[in-house]
Amino acid sequence: MKLKQIMLDHGSGGLASQELIEKLFLRYLDHPLLADMEDSAVFSVPGTRLAMSTDSYVVDPLFFPGGDIGQLAVHGTINDLAMRGARPLYLSLAFILEEGLSYGELEKIIRSIAQASKDAAVPIITGDTKVVERGKADKIFINSTGLGVVAPDCQISLTRARPGDKIIISGPMGDHGLTIMSQRSGLSLSGDLASDTMPLHGLVEQLLDEFGPAIHTLHDPTRGGVATGLNEIASHSKVALEIMEAALPIRPQVAAGCEILGLDPLYLANEGKVLIFVAADKAQGLLNLAHSRPEGREAAIIGQVQEGPAGRVSLITAIGGSRLLTPLQGQPLPRIC
Amino acid sequence: MKLKQIMLDHGSGGLASQELIEKLFLRYLDHPLLADMEDSAVFSVPGTRLAMSTDSYVVDPLFFPGGDIGQLAVHGTINDLAMRGARPLYLSLAFILEEGLSYGELEKIIRSIAQASKDAAVPIITGDTKVVERGKADKIFINSTGLGVVAPDCQISLTRARPGDKIIISGPMGDHGLTIMSQRSGLSLSGDLASDTMPLHGLVEQLLDEFGPAIHTLHDPTRGGVATGLNEIASHSKVALEIMEAALPIRPQVAAGCEILGLDPLYLANEGKVLIFVAADKAQGLLNLAHSRPEGREAAIIGQVQEGPAGRVSLITAIGGSRLLTPLQGQPLPRIC
Repeated sequence: MKLKQIMLDHGSGGLASQELIEKLFLRYLDHPLLADMEDSAVFSVPGTRLAMSTDSYVVDPLFFPGGDIGQLAVHGTINDLAMRGARPLYLSLAFILEEGLSYGELEKIIRSIAQASKDAAVPIITGDTKVVERGKADKIFINSTGLGVVAPDCQISLTRARPGDKIIISGPMGDHGLTIMSQRSGLSLSGDLASDTMPLHGLVEQLLDEFGPAIHTLHDPTRGGVATGLNEIASHSKVALEIMEAALPIRPQVAAGCEILGLDPLYLANEGKVLIFVAADKAQGLLNLAHSRPEGREAAIIGQVQEGPAGRVSLITAIGGSRLLTPLQGQPLPRIC
Repeated sequence: MKLKQIMLDHGSGGLASQELIEKLFLRYLDHPLLADMEDSAVFSVPGTRLAMSTDSYVVDPLFFPGGDIGQLAVHGTINDLAMRGARPLYLSLAFILEEGLSYGELEKIIRSIAQASKDAAVPIITGDTKVVERGKADKIFINSTGLGVVAPDCQISLTRARPGDKIIISGPMGDHGLTIMSQRSGLSLSGDLASDTMPLHGLVEQLLDEFGPAIHTLHDPTRGGVATGLNEIASHSKVALEIMEAALPIRPQVAAGCEILGLDPLYLANEGKVLIFVAADKAQGLLNLAHSRPEGREAAIIGQVQEGPAGRVSLITAIGGSRLLTPLQGQPLPRIC
């Protein structure tokens, strides 16, 4: 009999758990370390300077134009590693499943995870599955934790933005956040609006190969969007940032959707964009290289770093005025990733 | 105004998230790598052979005699690393919080995590917090993922149990599982029944220092209990196991509680026990050393490994009969950890 839905028994650690792992998870996720089903995965790494990052994914809905929760769980954690200049090596994956989750949906998510992991060449080597009673979770929550290796001389950090640096964004803002919000509101916006979820480690690796020490800070503006990300950097690096509104890349359908839903693209989550702080004399070269890759085809210089006041982010508006850009506050956009 | 409960805003990645992290999490969890609040933690490790393990904790109730969900999240993942002979180095921590969770309960859990992490000397270096709407989770779920370093010559694995090995358990079975089940059933069993949650890496490290290559397999029998764990080892190592019922350490209050609730201690979860498969000539020495430590004070030899049939686990009953010990099946004990 084909399994129709997840039962509590699948989380008990007994035969049913084992069957779920063997018949579903290992069918798609087939790295030998995972298939070993040991208490932990043991492996060798090419260096002793490492990066580790964790994220849980609770996005609602699970499937949306451009992606699903499974892709987010792979891309999001890979990107968090890449933001420190790390080369992602391995991921762990932990599921919290709600009793009654359809087996078909779970299979679709696992396939998507497997594909994303394969495309990114970052295998899943250890995992965990828990099941909670109906009504005690929302279908599926996923945690992924990533491990990467960092070059000995790489010093990329939120603290290293320097006066004079140019600020580059790798492409248009807000696609992911608006896609989720419009799905949830039931609005059908322009047909080609989709999440931007994608792994950025390939782009970052090439940029670092070419411009290594000139790149000071990398940050993926997910929850809280570009405005919140810039505030974090301004405050960690104790500098002021000046952003040119006219230079911000925003797709017309995102601008229009934001107007309808009363949202600001500067605060919408992105799942495939990186903010790059680079020494001014390398900015144009870096931009050209970014344009040569699919992840950075629409990259743009959006501002620069100033001495101070420390922590201030200003937006120079299209008509030449200036307004303060604060972090996201009092505008909850829950379960966006 | 003192915060009374968690709101959706605490998961939006904006100011409220930042305040929660700074005022609560970083107040108790103060490792510099965590306090950096970077996209990922970057650090150096003392070796290139590593172990990684992930677990989500969904235990219900959150607080129980002997421990709480926070302690489990620290001990459980540390133990999974130790089961491969790894020395645990670092943990990540990811929370999924339900809107409305009492701030006081969360604080109590964070304090407990901080204490457990400090006692075990395994710091938390990176984290994540998501908040979902009321009714979409059950107060709090925690994922912890651990990283450890493994000696180059250490080969401990579920596959390495060998005919002739003695099987040792580090103490009495079923304390954790019965504690949770009795709390949930509302039964008040004997007053000193409590979870056995504890970190085992100290014990394992000392055993390995002394008996290194003679130790073939380590396994912590959590979900599914000792019977399921033994089945996993028998099947991975392609050997048969023979367990002496009379030798199994079970506290009288656990035996009594199991009778009342209709549970079998062999299938109850343990959170501070390890099954050790050791070459026969070292078994007594290892047992003596275990007895000298608090984690192993009540350790006992409970059986031995035989050639075959591969995968079979037999229980030799107190009256000399033999019955097959199968993995846990059709008896869901959900949310035990």
